[in-house]
Amino acid sequence: MKIALDVMGGDHAPQNPMGGVKLALETLPQIEKIFLVGVPELIEQEMHKQGIPASPKLEIVPASQVVDMSDSGLDAVRKKKDSSIARAVDLVKEKTADAVVSAGHTGAAVTASLIKLRTLPHIERPAIASVMPSQTTTWLLIDAGANPDSLPEHLVQNALMGSAYAKHVMGRPNPRVGLMSNGTEEEKGNALCKETAKLLRTTPGINFIGNVEGHDLWETPPDVVVCDGFTGNIILKTSEALAHALFGMIKTEIISSTRTKIGGLLAKPAFKRIHKKTSADEAGGMPLLGLNGITIIAHGGANAYAMKNAIRMACDTISHQVNPHIEAAISQHLLIHAHA
Amino acid sequence: MKIALDVMGGDHAPQNPMGGVKLALETLPQIEKIFLVGVPELIEQEMHKQGIPASPKLEIVPASQVVDMSDSGLDAVRKKKDSSIARAVDLVKEKTADAVVSAGHTGAAVTASLIKLRTLPHIERPAIASVMPSQTTTWLLIDAGANPDSLPEHLVQNALMGSAYAKHVMGRPNPRVGLMSNGTEEEKGNALCKETAKLLRTTPGINFIGNVEGHDLWETPPDVVVCDGFTGNIILKTSEALAHALFGMIKTEIISSTRTKIGGLLAKPAFKRIHKKTSADEAGGMPLLGLNGITIIAHGGANAYAMKNAIRMACDTISHQVNPHIEAAISQHLLIHAHA
Repeated sequence: MKIALDVMGGDHAPQNPMGGVKLALETLPQIEKIFLVGVPELIEQEMHKQGIPASPKLEIVPASQVVDMSDSGLDAVRKKKDSSIARAVDLVKEKTADAVVSAGHTGAAVTASLIKLRTLPHIERPAIASVMPSQTTTWLLIDAGANPDSLPEHLVQNALMGSAYAKHVMGRPNPRVGLMSNGTEEEKGNALCKETAKLLRTTPGINFIGNVEGHDLWETPPDVVVCDGFTGNIILKTSEALAHALFGMIKTEIISSTRTKIGGLLAKPAFKRIHKKTSADEAGGMPLLGLNGITIIAHGGANAYAMKNAIRMACDTISHQVNPHIEAAISQHLLIHAHA
Repeated sequence: MKIALDVMGGDHAPQNPMGGVKLALETLPQIEKIFLVGVPELIEQEMHKQGIPASPKLEIVPASQVVDMSDSGLDAVRKKKDSSIARAVDLVKEKTADAVVSAGHTGAAVTASLIKLRTLPHIERPAIASVMPSQTTTWLLIDAGANPDSLPEHLVQNALMGSAYAKHVMGRPNPRVGLMSNGTEEEKGNALCKETAKLLRTTPGINFIGNVEGHDLWETPPDVVVCDGFTGNIILKTSEALAHALFGMIKTEIISSTRTKIGGLLAKPAFKRIHKKTSADEAGGMPLLGLNGITIIAHGGANAYAMKNAIRMACDTISHQVNPHIEAAISQHLLIHAHA
């Protein structure tokens, strides 16, 4: 498998993306090639610093520009034609690489992917799928932020795409799909939600279990939770930040007395296990589904381990043929609708 | 102050509402009267069980029906005319009581309040305001669930009402108002959010600081976070459930070995402090703002301590004259608009 990596993207670039490359070469034998897209001198410096030897599996692809977080997504793509994310997506477009991985500006990665790769046939909008933790199992949140103003049919497409990913990558034979709402009862929801529920109830090929609410997400979540990108992004960021704040509060309170400090030291292994279970580093990235190509969006603050996992997610998305499965699901959906 | 309490409302009614009454009589001297609305025999039984003596401050008001969680909000109000929540709201409507407190069906409490009390002049929709915790301070989430399909002008009214509450009850001299979005940048947001931001930027009397995202809520939140009731309810429930799940995971992991178990016992005071800081029991309830009267919605699972705090919140909302302040803010807003 051949991965195009946006080496300049992320809060700690090029350090962490290159740290991810080092770990990926050591642990992911399925990798044939990683294209290191960015400013060659900076990449070479970083390789030297981290002791990453030249390898036939690594190839530097020059890109002179870097997208700043202050650029708008569209401006970044329009005005910085030679940015690392644009060049990385080009490699996928021309089939030199199978997937692109970026921890840079999400809007720029989405826009560049949408403009250059286009969507799969009959998919109107791509959606960000985020593998989320819970007490019992993982679940897929879709859309976690690509499309803030979604229509009911976009949400049905999210359900089809999310089901394909859950089935073929996450190994759920008949993925249960819940619709994010402000209550589980059928009459709950905003207008978008109610209209979408009607469609999901009558769409064959989707194992729709009805509305889900916040309380369902962390204990016994369905396999796929469908929502618009505005709601999904708020769930993603709010939850991530709350977990971070709670662990911060625990730390502050624990170091406030000798007794609790000793307690905290003894309990440390328990906290480490929870951190591993809940950390976004384990998934590493979020696939942008619905594209004629594969784009994996890593967290801006991703460390080397998370970047390695984002590269692994790219490999999994390729090897499990997520896109052909999405195309099949959409075709079947359209076929049934045409006959209905 | 005179409070109408829906004694039959809540997962543990009449036990916990009556437990709240007991604590309120002991700790809230400002209370002149609590009207105990519900089935008289059950209320008397519960008073006997909990050793609550008859008092001139307590008066039982009979209501023969109880709203079930399976009723829809509107059906509950239409079909159960003699329900405890309907009768409790009636007491406020006829000015016998100053405020109603209910831990029952939220939809029924909102609908009964809206139909019987009506909104304040020029307020189109009431909004649920929820006092939320963070690492540093509390903040107000408005709307936490009353109005799932909001228009930009409703969100501006939420900002005005939330500011009045934050200023006069929470003691924030010039409340900073943030608009909940999927990113802090001005171009982020769904259509509702962008349209609302435009209005908020030009509305005098609102100290608008721009968009806020999930990451802002738990560390350095603004005083007021404005959103539609669909988004707000999802934030409320998702956060509440995530905190619950994380503490559950901590418990499970800590009891999994002797070492961590001892650590957990020693660290217990730290966890107790965090629980107190983050628990919804401290606020006790959520005011439904914008009504020509005062309704406090307590959590369905509220314990006696939370019910007491919900009663205290009702007293605070009365004594700080939240409704006259909201009316003044709205009048000033309309006056400026008329002259603009």
